[in-house]
Amino acid sequence: MAGTKSSRRLPKSQAREKAAGGPAIILVRPQLAENIGMAARSMLNFGLLDLRLVAPREGWPNEKAFPPSSGADEVLNSARVYPTTAKAVADLQFVYATSARVRDMVKTVATPETAARDIRTQANTGKKCGILFGRESKGLDNDDVALADALLMAPLNPAFSSLNLAQAVLLVGYEWYRSADNTPDKTLPIPKDTRPANKEELVQLFEHLERELDACGFLRVKEKRPIMVRNLRNIFQRAQLTEQEVRTLRGVIKSLAEFPRNRKKE
Amino acid sequence: MAGTKSSRRLPKSQAREKAAGGPAIILVRPQLAENIGMAARSMLNFGLLDLRLVAPREGWPNEKAFPPSSGADEVLNSARVYPTTAKAVADLQFVYATSARVRDMVKTVATPETAARDIRTQANTGKKCGILFGRESKGLDNDDVALADALLMAPLNPAFSSLNLAQAVLLVGYEWYRSADNTPDKTLPIPKDTRPANKEELVQLFEHLERELDACGFLRVKEKRPIMVRNLRNIFQRAQLTEQEVRTLRGVIKSLAEFPRNRKKE
Repeated sequence: MAGTKSSRRLPKSQAREKAAGGPAIILVRPQLAENIGMAARSMLNFGLLDLRLVAPREGWPNEKAFPPSSGADEVLNSARVYPTTAKAVADLQFVYATSARVRDMVKTVATPETAARDIRTQANTGKKCGILFGRESKGLDNDDVALADALLMAPLNPAFSSLNLAQAVLLVGYEWYRSADNTPDKTLPIPKDTRPANKEELVQLFEHLERELDACGFLRVKEKRPIMVRNLRNIFQRAQLTEQEVRTLRGVIKSLAEFPRNRKKE
Repeated sequence: MAGTKSSRRLPKSQAREKAAGGPAIILVRPQLAENIGMAARSMLNFGLLDLRLVAPREGWPNEKAFPPSSGADEVLNSARVYPTTAKAVADLQFVYATSARVRDMVKTVATPETAARDIRTQANTGKKCGILFGRESKGLDNDDVALADALLMAPLNPAFSSLNLAQAVLLVGYEWYRSADNTPDKTLPIPKDTRPANKEELVQLFEHLERELDACGFLRVKEKRPIMVRNLRNIFQRAQLTEQEVRTLRGVIKSLAEFPRNRKKE
């Protein structure tokens, strides 16, 4: 995440395929070109490519947007500028408007997750969708919101709910990406040069340890031996050891067990 | 969302209650004080308050962190500084390390959503958790990662997976907040001065419209009348009208229907 450029770049065509059907990101009257750059970075983090700018205050194209985009040039270079929100959404068939508050309007309000799934579903049936983001200082005007089909509101600490533009785009992009992402919830990746230990290897490790603990006297209290053995076995069961790690641990046991003898020899 | 300060501030005590059990956010050797400020803003957006800094390069406290935090002073003022990662996590019982890539280590990898739920579950059983974030340029060292119980990796465009520090904190905070959030997926909020129309009001609207359309001749083709009536009724059913809107629409129909007569009078 933070501060790490990926070393495994996909060909652009593949990234583009994953992003197909992504919503247009429409920044309405953005004030600072830097924020456009940071928003473009957030878009590309999640494969979104269709950036639209309504009357950007500092003009467009604008060189100041490029450094904060951290290399999201392809998004900035293909950005389109429109004089009004109505023109920017003209070709779209469903539009969400982001908002930090419920407006005094009768308009559906969706969470980012629900909106993302909805956009994914609509894209799969051939509809083009877009998401409006307001200017940094005040958000969207009510007239812009009235052009949208629904509001998109992120759950936020009600005592501190101001997100900057790039962060609002980030959350929406994240949910868009997640809506088609099949990353497993939790995995234990094993390096290629080893594999998870099997139970025979584990039992051999347990027996090796218990043999040495019998020898050195650690398990000498007969009534306590069964529970201590079970507790030790549970520790190593929980660790989900690889075959390589089982060998390392056997080396550790051997080395510790031989240490007094080694020392005597000295 | 973007650019909108909430007008409905919760008392701090209430925000604090919602945040109870939140993970410590540990920034390891952050390079720029501005980034610490932006990370604090992301934390407070989701009610996270426990900020820990390991050897911040520009020193601490640092005035440069405050403007980019957009008012998250309470997070910055209570931040604690540690000389090493080991000291920063000493009181914690479960630690995630954020990473943009799988390390050459045998370590569980979780998505932000899964990690957030896990932290919530652990907090509910009294465990203190923390999340490590690496420096802006290179992320966490492997020795820092080895102090963690598991890795936290966000699904990101593999062709452009570099998040800035505040954005990484934002995604994790968002998932933490979401893990206990009960915002409905989708709602249609109705202003207090009205209510959803009931079916009697709707049918009266339909019949008013159809009466006027019969009168003006729009429904004159007898075989087509039933399907046109059904289509028109479906349009207004879909709109989920309020009682106020039904009255507005009846006013619109009345006004349009009377218009030729009004004109004649002139």
